[in-house]
Amino acid sequence: MLTLEDPADAQFRLVEAKAPVVAIVGATGAVGVELLRCLESRGFPLGGLKLLASPRSAGKTLDFKGEPVTIEALTEESFAGVDIALFSAGSGISKRYAAAAVKAGAVVVDNSSAFRMDADVPLVVPEVNAASLAGHRGVIANPNCVAAIATVALAPLHRAYPIRRLTAATYQAASGAGAAAMEELRESTAAYLRGESFEPKVLPHPYAFNLFSHNADMDEETGYNGEETKVVAETRRILGTPELPIGITCIRVPVLRAHAMALTVEFDEVVTVEEARTILGNAPGLRLVDNRAANYFPMPSDASGQDDVLVGRIRQDIGDPSGKSLALFVAGDQLLKGAALNAVQIAELLLKR
Amino acid sequence: MLTLEDPADAQFRLVEAKAPVVAIVGATGAVGVELLRCLESRGFPLGGLKLLASPRSAGKTLDFKGEPVTIEALTEESFAGVDIALFSAGSGISKRYAAAAVKAGAVVVDNSSAFRMDADVPLVVPEVNAASLAGHRGVIANPNCVAAIATVALAPLHRAYPIRRLTAATYQAASGAGAAAMEELRESTAAYLRGESFEPKVLPHPYAFNLFSHNADMDEETGYNGEETKVVAETRRILGTPELPIGITCIRVPVLRAHAMALTVEFDEVVTVEEARTILGNAPGLRLVDNRAANYFPMPSDASGQDDVLVGRIRQDIGDPSGKSLALFVAGDQLLKGAALNAVQIAELLLKR
Repeated sequence: MLTLEDPADAQFRLVEAKAPVVAIVGATGAVGVELLRCLESRGFPLGGLKLLASPRSAGKTLDFKGEPVTIEALTEESFAGVDIALFSAGSGISKRYAAAAVKAGAVVVDNSSAFRMDADVPLVVPEVNAASLAGHRGVIANPNCVAAIATVALAPLHRAYPIRRLTAATYQAASGAGAAAMEELRESTAAYLRGESFEPKVLPHPYAFNLFSHNADMDEETGYNGEETKVVAETRRILGTPELPIGITCIRVPVLRAHAMALTVEFDEVVTVEEARTILGNAPGLRLVDNRAANYFPMPSDASGQDDVLVGRIRQDIGDPSGKSLALFVAGDQLLKGAALNAVQIAELLLKR
Repeated sequence: MLTLEDPADAQFRLVEAKAPVVAIVGATGAVGVELLRCLESRGFPLGGLKLLASPRSAGKTLDFKGEPVTIEALTEESFAGVDIALFSAGSGISKRYAAAAVKAGAVVVDNSSAFRMDADVPLVVPEVNAASLAGHRGVIANPNCVAAIATVALAPLHRAYPIRRLTAATYQAASGAGAAAMEELRESTAAYLRGESFEPKVLPHPYAFNLFSHNADMDEETGYNGEETKVVAETRRILGTPELPIGITCIRVPVLRAHAMALTVEFDEVVTVEEARTILGNAPGLRLVDNRAANYFPMPSDASGQDDVLVGRIRQDIGDPSGKSLALFVAGDQLLKGAALNAVQIAELLLKR
């Protein structure tokens, strides 16, 4: 629960500045760098840019539109004059500094899990539930990467044919664990190929040509890890289906930056492959990659660096004799739609209002 | 359907030789090499060893117990004096030469898919359905690697609590596509790390830090690929559940030689995690790797080179509100339990009879 210093401050203006000042908190991280690139490539109408990070990075620069921007150390005073603060420096930083940003007048778009289940904080995937922004009180949460990518594909189906059960197995990239994990995947793989041993430093298990159950904290009682718990809760919240049964297995695979997932979706009624293909082919933020003749379907290598989520392998689930289930395979860039792009899209929505 | 030249020849002796002569067809392949190693490491009571391969490999040698054994070119005359012929050179070779081996008096254990669904040919996972060997007429089929690994974990549960539905997503290693695919994974990854491009030669898609829908031929009508179709049909046959609904997604991941799979298993009644753990912990061919406190579960790196299939992440499937479903994660060496080891175990059963 986000506690504001004074609830009276919680009457938020929308972003009225035509060219708002944007701050990126965690500018040097894997997502921070992509936030910068998204602002750049999408021509976001910036009135100013503040790059905030730990004191360790202060004084260094990152390029924006060819010009170096100096990184400043994050403090509670960093947000004076900031209209939109894009946070991506972990839950701890968000919990500590979001209120200060809001108090200074900024709208916070937070990429951490700190406020995602807070009833006062909309959890937004612009293609899916932009309307939920209406209730925002200065903080908007950017969802977990799997939830964001999955709901882009699930929501259009759900709008046409209510979903009543979901089973998901994920194939999650290194980027979800940050830039250091991506580097560990590269380094440990290079070591493996040289026949050398490698001691994992960032992730708990060997990563070269290996995969493992997601490294988020495990609930020892239920046997579900924190990633799975987040995906379930956030997917329900984004789709507006608080009771939707979701079975999920989250696996970290040796892929650099795009997540994939096998989804089995049960509907209230029979949905044909052709209907699903039409719906998904016309939905925003999605690209249909479903070429049976060429055996060509969504792959991380094609999803990487792409704004669109790729969806394909749309087929009847032969495990459900009722014919009411479809199987899909989805791939999306974890750093883009799973994080930075979605945050910048939220910022864009704030401008339009 | 295996057509024997003369059905009268189909009265097969069991292997009576105390020290049978064994032939390996496809000795130079990824599985062939492991067949040799399994015979060696398990102390199989060999009376003689014949290594058969294409004329291209004839004259080369492979070591067995420190001695070189010369590879011979496979012909229809290769099987004189052979008691057991282990075939692993693809369906075409099996279809062409299995009958000759049987006619010469050998029992064929065939690792290809040629005869797996033939009613006269038992499809055997020794831990699961050794009894089905009784009906063999000289050819015994070794299952698809996913089916073999999955059924080792599923059968003990099914015996205690009938399974009524299965949903599977696989994480399949390069080895399933042969030694050349393993080499392509290594080479393409090395090229990626050097920043060089790499043109796939063996597999249809880039493999370095990437994954893709299984490269088996696709049924354009149903949208299922041949691997998925095989796993469904063979799992049903091995478990003796011809109507079991199985939904499946087979994915090739950048792992060298062990397959993993996320299984969601629905039973006729509620099965507790504790019951399942007890059953699986006492079942043959399985090792329980299910440490929630340490977040330690089955991984390809631990399964590689191991005879046992690893099973863990046993938990209630929160996607099934009835409480009648469990989720599991399984990893097994594709070349061992998924191929060579299972074949040698079948050969051992033939000796014991």
